Amino acid sequence: MAFPRDDLPTPALVLDVAALDRNIVAMASFAAERGVALRPHAKTHKSAEIARRQIAAGAVGICCAKLAEAEALAAEGIGDIHLTSPVVTPGGIARLRALAGRIKLSVVVDHPDNARALAGCGATLFVDVDPGVHRTGVISPKAAAGLAKAIGAIGGVQFYCGSEQHIQSATDRHAALAAKTEYLRNVLDAIRAAGIDVPVVTGGGTGSFAIDAELGVLTELQVGSYIFLDREYGDCELRGPAFEPSLFVDASVISANTPDMVTIDAGLKAFATDSGVPVITAGADGHFVFMGDEQGAVMGKELPALAARITLMPPHCDPTVNLYDRYALVEGDTVTGFWPVTARGRST
Amino acid sequence: MAFPRDDLPTPALVLDVAALDRNIVAMASFAAERGVALRPHAKTHKSAEIARRQIAAGAVGICCAKLAEAEALAAEGIGDIHLTSPVVTPGGIARLRALAGRIKLSVVVDHPDNARALAGCGATLFVDVDPGVHRTGVISPKAAAGLAKAIGAIGGVQFYCGSEQHIQSATDRHAALAAKTEYLRNVLDAIRAAGIDVPVVTGGGTGSFAIDAELGVLTELQVGSYIFLDREYGDCELRGPAFEPSLFVDASVISANTPDMVTIDAGLKAFATDSGVPVITAGADGHFVFMGDEQGAVMGKELPALAARITLMPPHCDPTVNLYDRYALVEGDTVTGFWPVTARGRST
Repeated sequence: MAFPRDDLPTPALVLDVAALDRNIVAMASFAAERGVALRPHAKTHKSAEIARRQIAAGAVGICCAKLAEAEALAAEGIGDIHLTSPVVTPGGIARLRALAGRIKLSVVVDHPDNARALAGCGATLFVDVDPGVHRTGVISPKAAAGLAKAIGAIGGVQFYCGSEQHIQSATDRHAALAAKTEYLRNVLDAIRAAGIDVPVVTGGGTGSFAIDAELGVLTELQVGSYIFLDREYGDCELRGPAFEPSLFVDASVISANTPDMVTIDAGLKAFATDSGVPVITAGADGHFVFMGDEQGAVMGKELPALAARITLMPPHCDPTVNLYDRYALVEGDTVTGFWPVTARGRST
Repeated sequence: MAFPRDDLPTPALVLDVAALDRNIVAMASFAAERGVALRPHAKTHKSAEIARRQIAAGAVGICCAKLAEAEALAAEGIGDIHLTSPVVTPGGIARLRALAGRIKLSVVVDHPDNARALAGCGATLFVDVDPGVHRTGVISPKAAAGLAKAIGAIGGVQFYCGSEQHIQSATDRHAALAAKTEYLRNVLDAIRAAGIDVPVVTGGGTGSFAIDAELGVLTELQVGSYIFLDREYGDCELRGPAFEPSLFVDASVISANTPDMVTIDAGLKAFATDSGVPVITAGADGHFVFMGDEQGAVMGKELPALAARITLMPPHCDPTVNLYDRYALVEGDTVTGFWPVTARGRST
């Protein structure tokens, strides 16, 4: 079913599978060499096929951000999932219980009330520790120890430093993560001093994994974006293995009436807008500007003609993938197939 | 199948159908009174059911931004669609031809090459006129007349003033639109002077329709957001009939460990981020801050407890709707059913 990439209806989410596979192998090799477990975050790709490839390369399982994401991937055969957000509503807890009957499931907890509500739910409970961003997690070593005691046997501790992932300088990022990790050591000491074993310490991301491995406290890495990269991570000085951009959006020129500017068929519904603008990687020498829900402009000199193709790298991969129902798989200028975005929109 | 709104898995896109219906009727009545045709833009709602209600209330048909959106709504029985963006690729033109064999279809054109490529395609062609934003459209009265002559019999002219829709002061918005409409008159004069009839002049939006009706040049209104409103239009001093917010997102508190702050399960994948932040309309007295892909924070005093519900009004309705697979229909605290977002993600 291979066909020319230029025949793809646009805007299209395009995946260079060879580059994806190289990224998957590079991270798996890194984790194996450092003796740290790999549990990639599926909120990035929401794809059962990519999760299967990550597990085949050595990952112990995957992370999901939301229960519905986990339900969708479990239905496609993914059998070991860690939920990185608390599940607190009565309806959510009933669904969690049902899912824990079907797969190996763990979930984070950050409040004793929630720990009580989850007693006997069948999922392993992790203590979620707030690294200081105040999104989720307990906010002191004492609270962590208290929650761990309330739970009894914990699966481990989660510590995700979201704010540090995109510090552009590797030196500054290392310093920030070293300080956070010092705090994590205090948290783990407090939990262990309360007589509770901590089998797993899970966390980390594409901006921090190499530093986390060097600091040696995390036992499991939750990296997500390394499979695709994006403009935002491209702006960061990453350490560890080199990853390649594998995720793009192909668009077409739909209007070319103004000097030094053409309009393409990709706008606010084709790219997440939380992290700036996409970068043009092929088809034009210029920069992108959002032009509303359905269109963008490319500004530059010697721009392509009406109906020509342009390829762009998304500014932020996770919420961009969530806009599309499928990945178009490409080898150069050929489309070789499609993968569904299995858990697209599964945010509950 | 009615059930309590608190049992809805969150984040949920919630639609107050009674308010929606009042908005639909108010705009239809306004258009009928002013003797202007109504062709609402379905890029806002992407819903066959809402399109059917708009047509039942008096709309002559709908607008779609993209061919795939029109294909999805045509498959659900919508029989009269105007495409507001040019269709220029060979694959797109083949699909346009097929769709024109099934429904009454029109499409905008802004280049003679595209007009030639569309000859005999079965869709009525409109001359798209650039109001100065340079997104799409011909850029002078002379170019408009030349394109109209190249086409021959045109369906009409499209003139959409996107940049003026959200000018907050009604007086300033009126002045800006009056100036643009003066230019439109020159364009129409040039086309008519070339011997070409202009049966329809289509354009306008929720920020401009009352002014457009008063200025008296548009014969057809392409309003979209009036059915839902959103925070962005709520910030504008709108004229004409009063519309009510009908579209919300329900979310749940998932973490409450920090003073004066709770975390909810709605973030970058639950709201479009191009137009600021959502406004909290029920469940908490505070303001919203994005906290990443999956979460947001509510900052305030006397905040709700873990698992409590919060209702928010989206900052920008169109791209927010495009994140969800369904509308949950509510009457107060009861969910009465669901409608699919028929054309969600249909951006090609």
